[in-house]
Amino acid sequence: MKAKVHVFLKPGVLDVQGKAIEGAVHALGFGGVSGVRVGRMIEFDIAGDDRAKAEAEVKALCDRLLANTVIESYKAELI
Amino acid sequence: MKAKVHVFLKPGVLDVQGKAIEGAVHALGFGGVSGVRVGRMIEFDIAGDDRAKAEAEVKALCDRLLANTVIESYKAELI
Repeated sequence: MKAKVHVFLKPGVLDVQGKAIEGAVHALGFGGVSGVRVGRMIEFDIAGDDRAKAEAEVKALCDRLLANTVIESYKAELI
Repeated sequence: MKAKVHVFLKPGVLDVQGKAIEGAVHALGFGGVSGVRVGRMIEFDIAGDDRAKAEAEVKALCDRLLANTVIESYKAELI
């Protein structure tokens, strides 16, 4: 199975990378762009056919390694 | 309008960040995980109601700033 995990900063947490991109975007002349937020997208293959087990593994991985749940949230999907 | 841009390394380009995550995942005991690839997800608001113009702006932004098209590809969507 393929897993896709989108990790993003929680609302209210200052996104410095997003602010830097926003500044560069405006400097390039695209004034209509605002609210830039940057996240990570992590994709991987997970062995086995047991969907429930795979879902539990992905959740454990997100909580323990892929996301810093103090400041980040994540959305995981299996395909 | 809201734009979502997913930037990812082209197939064949070594993903060192992905390899590092894969090593850490295996060290945590999740042996079934393989082929880890890491990308960026950039979300922003774009002013105006002209969908075609917004699409052209997003494409220009991706090509000029958000992706290094030598080694990266991107998928952009407007919602």
